[in-house]
Amino acid sequence: MPSRPRILVGQSGGPTAAINASLAGVMTAGHAAGCSVLGMRYGIEGLLAGQTADLDALCTDDAALVSLSHTPASMLGSCRYRLPDPAADEAPYRHVFERLDQLGISTMVYIGGNDSMDTVDRLGAYGQQQGSSVRVVGVPKTIDNDLVGTDHTPGYGSAARFVATTVGELACDADVYDLKSVTFVEVMGRDAGWLTAAATLAPLMGYPAPDVVLLPEVVLDPDVLMQRLSEPLHQRNTVMVAVSEGVRLADGRLVAQLGAERPVGTDAFGHASATSGVCRYLAHLAKERLGCKARGVELSTLQRCAAHAASERDLREAAQLGGASVRAALGGATRMMSALERVSDWPYEARTTMVDVEGVANQVRGFPLAWMEDDRMGVTADFRRYAAPLVGGVPSGLLSYGQVRALLL
Amino acid sequence: MPSRPRILVGQSGGPTAAINASLAGVMTAGHAAGCSVLGMRYGIEGLLAGQTADLDALCTDDAALVSLSHTPASMLGSCRYRLPDPAADEAPYRHVFERLDQLGISTMVYIGGNDSMDTVDRLGAYGQQQGSSVRVVGVPKTIDNDLVGTDHTPGYGSAARFVATTVGELACDADVYDLKSVTFVEVMGRDAGWLTAAATLAPLMGYPAPDVVLLPEVVLDPDVLMQRLSEPLHQRNTVMVAVSEGVRLADGRLVAQLGAERPVGTDAFGHASATSGVCRYLAHLAKERLGCKARGVELSTLQRCAAHAASERDLREAAQLGGASVRAALGGATRMMSALERVSDWPYEARTTMVDVEGVANQVRGFPLAWMEDDRMGVTADFRRYAAPLVGGVPSGLLSYGQVRALLL
Repeated sequence: MPSRPRILVGQSGGPTAAINASLAGVMTAGHAAGCSVLGMRYGIEGLLAGQTADLDALCTDDAALVSLSHTPASMLGSCRYRLPDPAADEAPYRHVFERLDQLGISTMVYIGGNDSMDTVDRLGAYGQQQGSSVRVVGVPKTIDNDLVGTDHTPGYGSAARFVATTVGELACDADVYDLKSVTFVEVMGRDAGWLTAAATLAPLMGYPAPDVVLLPEVVLDPDVLMQRLSEPLHQRNTVMVAVSEGVRLADGRLVAQLGAERPVGTDAFGHASATSGVCRYLAHLAKERLGCKARGVELSTLQRCAAHAASERDLREAAQLGGASVRAALGGATRMMSALERVSDWPYEARTTMVDVEGVANQVRGFPLAWMEDDRMGVTADFRRYAAPLVGGVPSGLLSYGQVRALLL
Repeated sequence: MPSRPRILVGQSGGPTAAINASLAGVMTAGHAAGCSVLGMRYGIEGLLAGQTADLDALCTDDAALVSLSHTPASMLGSCRYRLPDPAADEAPYRHVFERLDQLGISTMVYIGGNDSMDTVDRLGAYGQQQGSSVRVVGVPKTIDNDLVGTDHTPGYGSAARFVATTVGELACDADVYDLKSVTFVEVMGRDAGWLTAAATLAPLMGYPAPDVVLLPEVVLDPDVLMQRLSEPLHQRNTVMVAVSEGVRLADGRLVAQLGAERPVGTDAFGHASATSGVCRYLAHLAKERLGCKARGVELSTLQRCAAHAASERDLREAAQLGGASVRAALGGATRMMSALERVSDWPYEARTTMVDVEGVANQVRGFPLAWMEDDRMGVTADFRRYAAPLVGGVPSGLLSYGQVRALLL
């Protein structure tokens, strides 16, 4: 048994560009509080398999901590393990708490999204019920920005920055030939449209805004969409659409299914997986109906791992939330998640707080319909006011693409 | 007729992140030499249609010129027009030179790749034959780096930087789960493997190198590839493959064709188009044969338009070559292209020179087989010594992903 309180930290779910910044935040705060810090490899799965890593030596290495904050992916490894209902199968719970006891853990910190917060909730509840002294806390993380209880989630700002930047660059690229074209850019987000909506921040990066954004919260009627696109296509050469991988038809089917080369399956959590097809299907349809060039671009996993385009504010907040969870747990909190509370849009200010994880787990915070334009194919300035501080702006004092173009042509 | 000598500048072929830097270089050098500068919209096609833009006002606007250098895509617009054989159809040639006369052009500068250099060659030859005083010169540009006569081409360094960075980030992302996986990243390059080979520069960006690179210069035997992948897959979880869109089977078919959802067509130049399918087909095969998780990621047009990840050296050289072509033309050169001649790998030094465009047009400089490893699935240090100076390195003083990982785990 270690003489100092011992924190166990793990990462779970899909990686983001900011999840390692949260890890660095946990390490720093843990060390500052006089704790020993142990990492679990591959989340709960690795813990059950006995895979841990001693992080103490690194807790004082500033160069390593700063560098860690800027790395992509989940440095400790991740998993997509779901705990069963303890009433049906208590064994994994017993196993986890046995492991925590063996390792002398007083606080477990789990960094992840909705499903990982379910793990925090279930383990925390089980621990309380068993009279365990182990505190279990969560640190939010998801590029989807769909966690309730927090103004936004670490990982979102960086992914949003990448989406805004690349949708803008693709718009410029699409505009070089003197012919009519529609480009469909497929953005991650199975159930929530926050990341797709971020395409409308392209002007912050100096690029033209997309004409249409299609969010999974809104039923898509492909006929109405084609009608909607014919208008801007009449006015100019290049029309840009950002489309969520998760958009659905009125009958509930994924649009991706209409054009899928492979059957749409389900992942370990029973969610329908929609990783291909939407942008290609819509490009095919536009070619046919609008008689123009059309292309589909899938932004792919680059959205969640493009550390080279990370938002510095996102990395900082991710680290702050890691620290906040550690301090709260050391103060006695359990079954809680750190969260961000916005104080002001401009000048931007947010503070960390702690929320009950029970109200977070398995909830999805959809994109607010009040922030959509009347035709539900665009978002309002309210969204941009909310999201702009999270992604950062044009990286230097350069004129925007549009400004240069206006001067030149 | 203008009182000052008048330069006409155009952009042609696919965009790159550096082609606008060449335009800025042409504008700066033209103005410095006391010339007026006119832009043609949409290359030769726009010229024939009478679409031009007066660039004089911008030639002295430093903020605009620097900003222009950092914009993606082709600001003047582009085309993929091919001039016919003048012996068969002289009309377009007469039409071009009539337009040049009407506009009072003394020098035409065309920024583009192999096909555009064919245009420079044909127009230059026709002009000489007709006794025209108009000089026609080229500025090289292509992410493919496949032009002969120059050490490398503007646009390549930035695209290579994007490929190296993102292949590295995807490798980190692929490694988060404790399971065996192979990732195939599809890179542009129909006939030349230079850009795919750039994936091996991932360590310069702080990331792991890919295990295998598959270039279009080498016939691919999918059975041999699967055999080759089983070895690293046995040793570790994550195997990375960078594959060119243009890899072919021994019978000459594109590998993309094996898995294509849509028929492979031909573009305006009669080249087989291979924009989809390779990475998806190989992922499918790996899943089947190696029994592991496998995914295909297409880097798509982001490779050529990711201005946010441009190589500063690439932008500088692109501008220098624009200037060199202008100065050479004003000194009397025609039917020539500016080029880079490498003086030293380290410390890197290159100088601009002029080469006859006749020897450049329609040639493809393939990746040298001497720079490939014996199994032709990797490249040697000779390539990395050549390419490293072109992409720039880790953007800051951070430790690499591998260094942090080695410290932590």
